[in-house]
Amino acid sequence: MNFCSNCGAAVELRIPPGDTLPRYVCRQCTTVHYQNPKLVVGALAQWEDRILLCRRAIEPRHGFWTLPAGFMENDETTAQAAARETAEEARARIEVGELYTMIDVPYISQVHLVYRARLLDLDFSAGEESLEVALLREDEIPWDQIAFRTIGMTLRYFFEDRRRGNWPFHCTSLALPPPAP
Amino acid sequence: MNFCSNCGAAVELRIPPGDTLPRYVCRQCTTVHYQNPKLVVGALAQWEDRILLCRRAIEPRHGFWTLPAGFMENDETTAQAAARETAEEARARIEVGELYTMIDVPYISQVHLVYRARLLDLDFSAGEESLEVALLREDEIPWDQIAFRTIGMTLRYFFEDRRRGNWPFHCTSLALPPPAP
Ligand SMILES: [Zn+2]
Ligand SMILES: [Zn+2]
Repeated sequence: MNFCSNCGAAVELRIPPGDTLPRYVCRQCTTVHYQNPKLVVGALAQWEDRILLCRRAIEPRHGFWTLPAGFMENDETTAQAAARETAEEARARIEVGELYTMIDVPYISQVHLVYRARLLDLDFSAGEESLEVALLREDEIPWDQIAFRTIGMTLRYFFEDRRRGNWPFHCTSLALPPPAP
Repeated sequence: MNFCSNCGAAVELRIPPGDTLPRYVCRQCTTVHYQNPKLVVGALAQWEDRILLCRRAIEPRHGFWTLPAGFMENDETTAQAAARETAEEARARIEVGELYTMIDVPYISQVHLVYRARLLDLDFSAGEESLEVALLREDEIPWDQIAFRTIGMTLRYFFEDRRRGNWPFHCTSLALPPPAP
């Protein structure tokens, strides 16, 4: 951040009065520009014993597989975000169920949420951000080609919980970035 | 938003290629400035049969009671945010437990999280944003002077769950703004 989005003057990084952290503060209109973590919301949509997965057509992780998920928008709920992302990336309609995982990713200032969901019909196809969309059984999932760690964790929780026959809410955090390739 | 925080030129509201919603886009450097919901994180800290509450010294809702809570910062986890807000607003140390409530507040583009927590000692006091801090029993809580609906809901869930002796995770949303005063 270099300029004030309110008045266009230069900003400087300093600790505002009564605050504890450095913020971008406008030198002219004194607006304090806070920066906050982002929510990424997705859906684990089931059809019988299969899960709806998308292969990414965009960076980061072009060509890798993921659950439909993306940045939450203003004016929507987390459940609406899960359904919207599924509609956009997999052109699929779901009934959103319970919140299933919440995973903090502090080193990129994100919080990832995944809802369990029920796929409503088989009329799905790749959206603009997907190369392909598929319904995959556990043994068909390309485990070494999953785009994001939080998605891989969510999928592993799912198949473990299905074997155990109960569905706890999983809440955890990733303390460290992934190792470099 | 009037100006680009990257280059200082004027922004315009338009739908970028491949997108579906209007965004603030810089006329000069073409940066797209997304706006996303914010996470508010708090703690419901227990000491025996009492709960730690703060009376607000700032707007909105000056003079009303709340659980220690505030906007999540970059580079922290949600549990760290709960502990930090409790340290700042109630100058209190807690052991953060399970995530207890997640309530969507789409009409102000926020998601509110509250963790259950254990107060570690009785050495607490009002931080800069609080008029006073108190440990209150259920019958001492000023129910008609609670600052925010999500906090009132969380407190009611707590006392109901305590009576029932089980502690489910509560995940819901507030569909409509509160009635005008
Ligand atoms: Zn300014
Ligand atoms: Zn610009």
